[in-house]
Amino acid sequence: MCQDRGCCHSCLHYVLDYETPKTLVIQSKAVGFVFRFTQLLVILYVVGYVCVVQKGYQETDSVISTVTTKVKGFAYSNTSDLEHRFWDVADYVIPPQGDHSFFVLTNIIVTPNQTQSRCPELPTPSSICTADCDCTEGHSDPRSNGIQTGLCVNYSDTQQTCEVLSWCPLEIDTNLPKHAMLAAAENFTVLIKNSVTYPKFKFHRRNIMPQINSSYLRRCEFNRITDPDCPIFRLKHIVSEAGEDFQSMAVKGGVLGILIDWSCDLDWWAGKCYPKYSFQRLDNKNPNNSVAPGYNFRFARYYKTPDGEETRTLIKGYGIRFDVIVFGTVPAVSDWVMLTCARKKDLYNKHKVTYLNEDSDSESVSG
Amino acid sequence: MCQDRGCCHSCLHYVLDYETPKTLVIQSKAVGFVFRFTQLLVILYVVGYVCVVQKGYQETDSVISTVTTKVKGFAYSNTSDLEHRFWDVADYVIPPQGDHSFFVLTNIIVTPNQTQSRCPELPTPSSICTADCDCTEGHSDPRSNGIQTGLCVNYSDTQQTCEVLSWCPLEIDTNLPKHAMLAAAENFTVLIKNSVTYPKFKFHRRNIMPQINSSYLRRCEFNRITDPDCPIFRLKHIVSEAGEDFQSMAVKGGVLGILIDWSCDLDWWAGKCYPKYSFQRLDNKNPNNSVAPGYNFRFARYYKTPDGEETRTLIKGYGIRFDVIVFGTVPAVSDWVMLTCARKKDLYNKHKVTYLNEDSDSESVSG
Amino acid sequence: MCQDRGCCHSCLHYVLDYETPKTLVIQSKAVGFVFRFTQLLVILYVVGYVCVVQKGYQETDSVISTVTTKVKGFAYSNTSDLEHRFWDVADYVIPPQGDHSFFVLTNIIVTPNQTQSRCPELPTPSSICTADCDCTEGHSDPRSNGIQTGLCVNYSDTQQTCEVLSWCPLEIDTNLPKHAMLAAAENFTVLIKNSVTYPKFKFHRRNIMPQINSSYLRRCEFNRITDPDCPIFRLKHIVSEAGEDFQSMAVKGGVLGILIDWSCDLDWWAGKCYPKYSFQRLDNKNPNNSVAPGYNFRFARYYKTPDGEETRTLIKGYGIRFDVIVFGTVPAVSDWVMLTCARKKDLYNKHKVTYLNEDSDSESVSG
Repeated sequence: MCQDRGCCHSCLHYVLDYETPKTLVIQSKAVGFVFRFTQLLVILYVVGYVCVVQKGYQETDSVISTVTTKVKGFAYSNTSDLEHRFWDVADYVIPPQGDHSFFVLTNIIVTPNQTQSRCPELPTPSSICTADCDCTEGHSDPRSNGIQTGLCVNYSDTQQTCEVLSWCPLEIDTNLPKHAMLAAAENFTVLIKNSVTYPKFKFHRRNIMPQINSSYLRRCEFNRITDPDCPIFRLKHIVSEAGEDFQSMAVKGGVLGILIDWSCDLDWWAGKCYPKYSFQRLDNKNPNNSVAPGYNFRFARYYKTPDGEETRTLIKGYGIRFDVIVFGTVPAVSDWVMLTCARKKDLYNKHKVTYLNEDSDSESVSG
Repeated sequence: MCQDRGCCHSCLHYVLDYETPKTLVIQSKAVGFVFRFTQLLVILYVVGYVCVVQKGYQETDSVISTVTTKVKGFAYSNTSDLEHRFWDVADYVIPPQGDHSFFVLTNIIVTPNQTQSRCPELPTPSSICTADCDCTEGHSDPRSNGIQTGLCVNYSDTQQTCEVLSWCPLEIDTNLPKHAMLAAAENFTVLIKNSVTYPKFKFHRRNIMPQINSSYLRRCEFNRITDPDCPIFRLKHIVSEAGEDFQSMAVKGGVLGILIDWSCDLDWWAGKCYPKYSFQRLDNKNPNNSVAPGYNFRFARYYKTPDGEETRTLIKGYGIRFDVIVFGTVPAVSDWVMLTCARKKDLYNKHKVTYLNEDSDSESVSG
Repeated sequence: MCQDRGCCHSCLHYVLDYETPKTLVIQSKAVGFVFRFTQLLVILYVVGYVCVVQKGYQETDSVISTVTTKVKGFAYSNTSDLEHRFWDVADYVIPPQGDHSFFVLTNIIVTPNQTQSRCPELPTPSSICTADCDCTEGHSDPRSNGIQTGLCVNYSDTQQTCEVLSWCPLEIDTNLPKHAMLAAAENFTVLIKNSVTYPKFKFHRRNIMPQINSSYLRRCEFNRITDPDCPIFRLKHIVSEAGEDFQSMAVKGGVLGILIDWSCDLDWWAGKCYPKYSFQRLDNKNPNNSVAPGYNFRFARYYKTPDGEETRTLIKGYGIRFDVIVFGTVPAVSDWVMLTCARKKDLYNKHKVTYLNEDSDSESVSG
């Protein structure tokens, strides 16, 4: 492009000339004071809001968490259905192990000795019959309990219903005990062990704090005021902190969250990073609109009679599912200090002044 | 530092002098128009893109979610292995309760009456033998089914294999039923109850919307067009929305995701925040490279014979695991409005002009 | 406001006047070089740090992950408690299926033939008695094993303890086998299938890479150097990579994390996106302060005797819980390029210079 020496020279000129804005200095103390005060505000904004409040210089990392739970306690039920039954952990914690979730059985409807056979359907408008022609062989209504055999049989002395092929006798789940069968479950305790790791910072913590010794752990029980670091929780205490009544929740079951908040600030002494527990009912207690309120599920225990026939005990178990929810982010000082604070500092830096002529007065006067 | 009055005076001078750049005003309407138009673009960019499109003024929060599921339905199988068997929830949902995941059994290979004993290994190149010396006592090939006893015994009339110590008889899992045994599972329904909480905003929602009443819930079934708010899903519908065929998926099993998207915008009427369901097959259906395609696992039921010997029924269960995956972030207006929009405004603010001399023309001419 | 033509004219004047700062050009090569060098640093910072290092132009998305696991292997135990017992997957994986977590039993304390009955409490300071009056009917100490009947009975020839109502005989869990009963579990293998989806980018990946064929999958085993893509892991290998000894961990159990890191960069060839496995013990091995170290839980198998009485076998199972933890974010180029890089470019743009007068020298001299 540059074909003669003059052009190249002017290119170099263009590249190496240094341009700086001309400034006018006003030697007024009032104006100067306002100017410096404005600068101060900008600096306070940068340091105070962006760095201190927003912690814009921090980098965050999400938590990797492991939870183990161990429930302790036993109960004795003496209702008519299951007279004089003793319950321990292996009976009432179902499934026997969970990671971040455990279920404690509090109320049950038991239907023992079911076999694959035929029996009269429970009486409902669609199952009541007067003759075999009211029943259709092979018909299976999703709301019924089995496949119709086409016969109309006696359900009771006064009622006839269609016979069904099913696990018989059928479960009658309408008379749920009004008082939770395992009312004693409120005194069960659960030990929650939680380890968290922030992979980016190679930061590791347990909810069992280093200053706690084993003898304390063997006898302590969580209490927000007196024992805030104890990882052993009484179920009744958890439920009442969530604003619920254990006995009324135990009848139909429910879901309860044990929230562990590990939001720490690694800028300060890392040893200060400890878990904050909170408790919250997660299902809806008394909604206007609900299907199957509470929490229950059906499971069975299978047996074989001496002659090889399979029988089962069907259990509709109501209880409280405790979900351990671990959350939190750990922020820490990082390279973002360059990115974020620097970004705001520009705002201030724009106000920087440069003196070219010491006798700026002469220039402005000359103008 | 400042040792005489003159120095202190000049320091004060330095601090309180106000400097402002000298500007040149070009009184050309063309140039002025271009300048203002550029300013307008910057303002539009700030308001339109940063604030409206990027929603830079919003703060986001992740979701804490609870899921409970309840499957309903029964089936009747009449294959040769398990003649005339009736299946209900307690039989086909394994484990009986899950939180964000539930499994529905659709096909099985049953090996009843296994006992701890000795039996001939299944014939494979490494297990076929002709004499005891072909078998090594105590040898256990990871690909075999037990620990060799050192004997070579008759597997069938024509074949001899090494005897092994194992749960006998051994499971033969090569003849999986071509048609899923619990084909009727496609008509099972599942009720999914999902509560979400955004802890930062104390915002709580259920997937059962407030306007839905209980009588609707008892009879409704999810349909994207007619019943988009119903939380009861027919399994066949879920699978077909994921682009799969239930019956072919049921034979070998698979994993299916029920995705619930709670991405709401709290800026607008919060009542508008409702879940969006989508369904997706999560395992690979027909990969070129796969081990153990589909989804299955083995479990056993343990019995005791009248004389106290332990026997078990081994079940290799194929089925569909439904994973309920809840995601979404809720953004809302917050202090970030100061940080983010203000940040962009600086861009514009830099263009602000200041008049010092009204007769700027004279100055530039004087130059 | 503007009531005469002159005012309106001056308004228009105000709007369309174009102001530009007056600049001073210093034609010094030294100063010019320093200036250009500073500009270069700013450009390098913008391009290098913000765009390349911080990847400020990328948008990220969190992962939706599905995990299925399948353990393979069998073991033979010949301890006194359970003489000559063969263990397969259905026996030692509890529960039989998990999604992101599976448990392998390695050591057990078995208490067979428990029935709901009465038996002497295990001797502890509070249970030892000399006469019935030392025991209180109905008393249940949370640290004991049942509800006292009020009788003082012979525990052994030398000791008397209070009789309790419980599952009898009571479990004696003090003599845990010193060597893990299922020591052979170290040679079990687990196949981990993991699919990840980034919904925002519609990006899908499996940990079984496309270039791997089925015959390789049938015989491979994960090794960081020779087989880094094989999804089949030997349990001993996992534990030793986490820096632990399988046999000592197997005695009391523990929790082990299998971390799958899917942090990919979609900017580059997406095919390069592959999982990185790492292993880490998640529970605390030898803390000074601990309750219930290791990992164990109790479960029971229920039987019925020929005369209908319920008995159970209580099992306190110790073992290793493997938690598969999938994490990672996928970033990709997006609109943020406008927002983020542009933001930094402003920093540079502020330095742009504009020439108004070619003979700037004359102006500065005139000053």
